[in-house]
Amino acid sequence: MSENELNIAVIGGDGIGPEVTAESLKVLRAALPAVNLTAREFNLGASHYLETGEILSDETIAELSGFDAIVLGAVGGDPADKRLAGGLVERGLLLKLRFAFDHAVNLRPTKLHPAVGSPLSAPGEIDFVVVREGTEGPYVGNGGVLKQGTPNEIANELSVNTAVGVERVVRKAFELAVERRGKLTLVHKKNVLVHAGALWQRITDQVAEEFPSVEVDYLHVDAATIFFVTDPSRFDVIVTDNLFGDILTDLAGAVGGGIGLAASANLNVDGSFPSMFEPVHGSAPDIAGTGKADPSAAILSVALLAEHLGHADAAARIRAAVDTEVTNRTEALSTAEIGDAVVALLGQN
Amino acid sequence: MSENELNIAVIGGDGIGPEVTAESLKVLRAALPAVNLTAREFNLGASHYLETGEILSDETIAELSGFDAIVLGAVGGDPADKRLAGGLVERGLLLKLRFAFDHAVNLRPTKLHPAVGSPLSAPGEIDFVVVREGTEGPYVGNGGVLKQGTPNEIANELSVNTAVGVERVVRKAFELAVERRGKLTLVHKKNVLVHAGALWQRITDQVAEEFPSVEVDYLHVDAATIFFVTDPSRFDVIVTDNLFGDILTDLAGAVGGGIGLAASANLNVDGSFPSMFEPVHGSAPDIAGTGKADPSAAILSVALLAEHLGHADAAARIRAAVDTEVTNRTEALSTAEIGDAVVALLGQN
Ligand SMILES: CC(C)[C@H](C(=O)O)[C@@H](O)C(=O)O
Ligand SMILES: CC(C)[C@H](C(=O)O)[C@@H](O)C(=O)O
Repeated sequence: MSENELNIAVIGGDGIGPEVTAESLKVLRAALPAVNLTAREFNLGASHYLETGEILSDETIAELSGFDAIVLGAVGGDPADKRLAGGLVERGLLLKLRFAFDHAVNLRPTKLHPAVGSPLSAPGEIDFVVVREGTEGPYVGNGGVLKQGTPNEIANELSVNTAVGVERVVRKAFELAVERRGKLTLVHKKNVLVHAGALWQRITDQVAEEFPSVEVDYLHVDAATIFFVTDPSRFDVIVTDNLFGDILTDLAGAVGGGIGLAASANLNVDGSFPSMFEPVHGSAPDIAGTGKADPSAAILSVALLAEHLGHADAAARIRAAVDTEVTNRTEALSTAEIGDAVVALLGQN
Repeated sequence: MSENELNIAVIGGDGIGPEVTAESLKVLRAALPAVNLTAREFNLGASHYLETGEILSDETIAELSGFDAIVLGAVGGDPADKRLAGGLVERGLLLKLRFAFDHAVNLRPTKLHPAVGSPLSAPGEIDFVVVREGTEGPYVGNGGVLKQGTPNEIANELSVNTAVGVERVVRKAFELAVERRGKLTLVHKKNVLVHAGALWQRITDQVAEEFPSVEVDYLHVDAATIFFVTDPSRFDVIVTDNLFGDILTDLAGAVGGGIGLAASANLNVDGSFPSMFEPVHGSAPDIAGTGKADPSAAILSVALLAEHLGHADAAARIRAAVDTEVTNRTEALSTAEIGDAVVALLGQN
């Protein structure tokens, strides 16, 4: 990848996914006028699987690995569809990409926009980032089942946590804390999950020694959810495991003004594979095709992409444009109208 | 146990624990004037451990097993105290009791009181019960660690889920739903924790056939947290695993007016061991000894006790008295003043 070239793989996915990625790509192009941006679409997702039987082949993974970044919309079909049971497509596509491309750090910022309502009556200033581990924990898929379907069935799930996996995400969280307000909160359940919890605490204590300016605290995940609704402004950077991060970032999106604005980055930290950028929201099949989907979260996700690939200035301009668009919006706009409005505002920043 | 005798074991525990259980016992006695109620105190908890080295001996477990019920205050010391690291006392005492006495069902009702504020600006009517599994899941303590303390450390946590364990808690949830508004929501993360999730879904589907009047739905745990803050009135009965239940009930307490009112019952469903009743809140060492602790959650927990042991009428009167006390309270009252006020109101119901 040269400074002036960007090869993006686009996986629109299901439901509103392709609608919002179309807008995010439009904005990314406009924000990087000097960059030769090529985008190639990959038709993958639950619908594609139901039509063709393909979820994600090794060939496709090999192809995707050659891109500078992946922009993903949303993956998932009708939850009641038995053919998709067991998270077949979520695991076979979304999680498979996170694992195959070693997306160690799942970055999920929450910032309550003044023009957007929070369900909290006194939200205060909400501006924090959840740094979620992306390749380990209970997500590894190393569970199993005995005596299946019988009254004696035993179903096991294994959570695997390695020092290497924990260290790299904790380090990233400290680096972010230094750039931000200098506060880091480790969230776990170390009084119950004692082995994993002790590892997370030990690594956090170790890395903390390299970042003496960062103030560190710890919360059990259950207690953390209380603060998310009673005092979210206490948070700056939260670092946590894959499953706790999954739960907390949906809650964060909700208290931070809705998941319509919740962006995320799945970062490969050593640069050996493409990172992947996706809104936190799902495929929302109920509003697919109506033009009602808000592409803001997808657009903020490509801001994370721009930032990650060295275009911090473009990232800042995209964020400012979304900010202004959200502030100015007085009536319901269509997906494309919002994208166009953000593009128009880009020029003015 | 005869109708007119009640032998209660009281584990006040740490911090504000003994203060709130004292009030709850006072209220229970007043609510059951015709019952010969004997209460025996057991000095256990983090402070007791630090003084004596005892957490919970087999002899004490054997003694406790002879009581009709256990009333517990709160367990836990200073989280920064290295001698208590790894949840030594929480696991060795609280979880050990839940496991030893086979507390299959951890019942945690949330009801937003009109006189109590919610952090949500439009909470609506919040009135639901989380039925949390109490003896399985990631709480079983079957994890382990390899290469401990090295850069190659691997820490594993195992979640164990059995058809028997899931069935009994799901059944209880359906029974409750029938008595309430007829709605049951299964919460899990079955698109990722596929083995455990499939078991929970299969058992729920099976038991549902016996309760055709109950409307059943499913939410992933991450999505459930969104509804807790955007639309909590959609919930009636939630059934979920041990860890998800832990997280969701702290969040529920917070949105439902604060954990000052959050009661819980750890139920042994076949009656072979005493059930245990405790507020959801912790030992709050910062306010211990100040008389500022609100005993309402502890008092509502003994209402659950009364109900469980066949004194539904007394339970209803305790709840009504707490209700009135909370409504009438115009200034901060001490722990004992609240207890006294509830006792005084009992007579008037
Ligand atoms: C779709 C699902 C597998 C995924 C996850 O659990 O990580 C989603 O909830 C998310 O947060 O990105
Ligand atoms: C203290 C802790 C072990 C306990 C739990 O995790 O169950 C507590 O959080 C609770 O909810 O009762």
